[in-house]
Amino acid sequence: MTLIAHPQSLHFAEPLLLQSGKSIRAYDLTYETYGTLNADKSNAVLVCHALNASHHVAGVYAHADAKTQEKSTGWWDNMIGPGKPVDTNHFFVIGVNNLGSCFGSTGPMHVNPDTQHVYGADFPVVTVEDWVNAQALLMDQLGISTLAAVMGGSLGGMQALSWTLQYPNRLRHAVVVASAPNLTAENIAFNEVARRAIVTDPDFHAGHFYQHGVIPKRGLRIARMIGHITYLSDDVMNAKFGRQLKPSLGLDSTQTAAHANADANADGYSYTTQDVEFQIESYLRHQGDKFAEYFDANTYLLITRALDYFDPARQFHGNLTKAFEIAKAKFLLVSFTTDWRFSPSRSREIVKALLDNNCDVSYAEIDAPHGHDAFLLDDQRYTSLVRSYFNSILNEITLKATMRAAA
Amino acid sequence: MTLIAHPQSLHFAEPLLLQSGKSIRAYDLTYETYGTLNADKSNAVLVCHALNASHHVAGVYAHADAKTQEKSTGWWDNMIGPGKPVDTNHFFVIGVNNLGSCFGSTGPMHVNPDTQHVYGADFPVVTVEDWVNAQALLMDQLGISTLAAVMGGSLGGMQALSWTLQYPNRLRHAVVVASAPNLTAENIAFNEVARRAIVTDPDFHAGHFYQHGVIPKRGLRIARMIGHITYLSDDVMNAKFGRQLKPSLGLDSTQTAAHANADANADGYSYTTQDVEFQIESYLRHQGDKFAEYFDANTYLLITRALDYFDPARQFHGNLTKAFEIAKAKFLLVSFTTDWRFSPSRSREIVKALLDNNCDVSYAEIDAPHGHDAFLLDDQRYTSLVRSYFNSILNEITLKATMRAAA
Repeated sequence: MTLIAHPQSLHFAEPLLLQSGKSIRAYDLTYETYGTLNADKSNAVLVCHALNASHHVAGVYAHADAKTQEKSTGWWDNMIGPGKPVDTNHFFVIGVNNLGSCFGSTGPMHVNPDTQHVYGADFPVVTVEDWVNAQALLMDQLGISTLAAVMGGSLGGMQALSWTLQYPNRLRHAVVVASAPNLTAENIAFNEVARRAIVTDPDFHAGHFYQHGVIPKRGLRIARMIGHITYLSDDVMNAKFGRQLKPSLGLDSTQTAAHANADANADGYSYTTQDVEFQIESYLRHQGDKFAEYFDANTYLLITRALDYFDPARQFHGNLTKAFEIAKAKFLLVSFTTDWRFSPSRSREIVKALLDNNCDVSYAEIDAPHGHDAFLLDDQRYTSLVRSYFNSILNEITLKATMRAAA
Repeated sequence: MTLIAHPQSLHFAEPLLLQSGKSIRAYDLTYETYGTLNADKSNAVLVCHALNASHHVAGVYAHADAKTQEKSTGWWDNMIGPGKPVDTNHFFVIGVNNLGSCFGSTGPMHVNPDTQHVYGADFPVVTVEDWVNAQALLMDQLGISTLAAVMGGSLGGMQALSWTLQYPNRLRHAVVVASAPNLTAENIAFNEVARRAIVTDPDFHAGHFYQHGVIPKRGLRIARMIGHITYLSDDVMNAKFGRQLKPSLGLDSTQTAAHANADANADGYSYTTQDVEFQIESYLRHQGDKFAEYFDANTYLLITRALDYFDPARQFHGNLTKAFEIAKAKFLLVSFTTDWRFSPSRSREIVKALLDNNCDVSYAEIDAPHGHDAFLLDDQRYTSLVRSYFNSILNEITLKATMRAAA
């Protein structure tokens, strides 16, 4: 059965005070829901997205034909849907596009009601905490006071963590996949290089490129290429691409002659510094080109900064155990062995802080070759684990309902 | 005693046939020598440079005053000089700037004698093998038929390896530090992103920026920032920078007010997407700025491509053991545990191939926190090892001389 997704939008007229001290005066949140909210509203699951994803978590769009259907499939469709590990036959799943993103919710490409100009680089800096506050207001509108679970991978996992600190009474479970309690210097460094590539692209125009009718695509391409390297493991890159050359599109006679001249030219190299030689180059360029077509440059800056800034232990002088004292949820954490962007050791830091606080925590370290990307991929151990965890959540919900009925 | 370095240059009128089949018709090689060549010319050590270094391996320049002296110090001065691990009181050390580089030897910023135009992007692609061929011609000119050792780190180590395959009878030892038998897909990927940043910089002008009076500094900065991330380990970055913020240069009253507004603003963040917030950002930007001032963009492309192309096992269908069948030198290999650019496992691949061929090989894996950069830094275990290895080379030389005298 194909799940058909319907994006919706809600307008919020009340200003949202941000962590920076600034506020957003009026804004829209775009979201999707799958499944049915039960009578006592106890089966709601919020799914938080990472850098370049959106509210479109599962299913396809009705208007998508066979050709565009694959493209229109939700980013966690393998995990969420009817009969999937997070089974929308039982759960009411909500995906929401975060503020500052570029897929429907208010962001840098929208008009600032205070100035009547497009925000551009003037869109206020938003943090994980701000997103969670906005998500909580959306939950209010949907009539959901307590979520069965908040779930996310990577930056999405940070949002799930932050829910347990900002609204400890409003969720029962946090499912935190391939995440971290903050970014390392190296993580920040990669984000910074990507941002510099965008900001120094002459087409960026200090973040007000919209009115110049251009897009800083050069910068976006570089940013995405860097990102892709860090999403994959060295091993999976070697397995997938290795040192394979891009198939030649036919040698001209000059090249053939040149090759014949040199002893070692059986290597098949075309000896170029600017053209594609290796398959990995072709892959990265393709990823960069695709990304530059659909992603907003200011959003890239905002979302990578939200990543940089997240650090719940900061106000406790780095003491993560202290930070989690307030948490009441039960936790499932998952990490992947070859994820060097958010390595298992970072998840273990969280697990330790939770155990220090006697929280109910399950943790799995999955031996997967795919690096950070693993959190989006099918791996039977991973999906089975999530399935059984959500089954147990479902049992809790059913038990509570039965007890309430009996009372 | 301060070693004073004197750069020299030699002109080669004979065309150099390159691996690509192209040739360089006439060229200069810039080099420096330290110490004295002994009577039987048996104490010569060639030091090969990596990406952004040069012939200026050791010592300082005579014209350098106290202020510029540090800057003018050779890139491996901690390793090479009078009384240093490679002791120039005993060894005659040669540093040479490779073809295509930008520190004196013929490169993209020089005039192509065939066209009378600056080469720019038309400078032919040069490989590790081409460099070694040019280095061998320089040795001919210096009257050195057999080198006591060829030594290098990273890409320099690849040149040392290649010497043992291209001129197995012309060196007795190869000292290969923090190197690899070829680049992985991830290595190539990082090189490619850096190249794309340069090539897509509008100031690159397809590699002919010299005649436009501009320099693609944006691209060079990004390239260098990416490079720096990969030279350091995650651990050393955390130890050195962590999540420390850049010291504020004074808050203005607006910022203070804004901070006072928000609850969590004791975090000290200034909430910016384009300005420096974390110290690691400041460090990387500084490195990028410095590099863009002195390094040539076309050279960056050429040298990263030489890295990509190096793969002695390629013509043996990936069989590195086969590739080293021809090698006759003795080997010292050194790797560093936290080097994720050229990890110890890559050095072990070489060691295995050498052992398969019954080569005389010493290998040390040094537990150092500094990542790839470790090969340039002082570490007592590392420098002592190199010192004792070169002492044993010296003993060999002395023994041979004594035996010759006795004969």
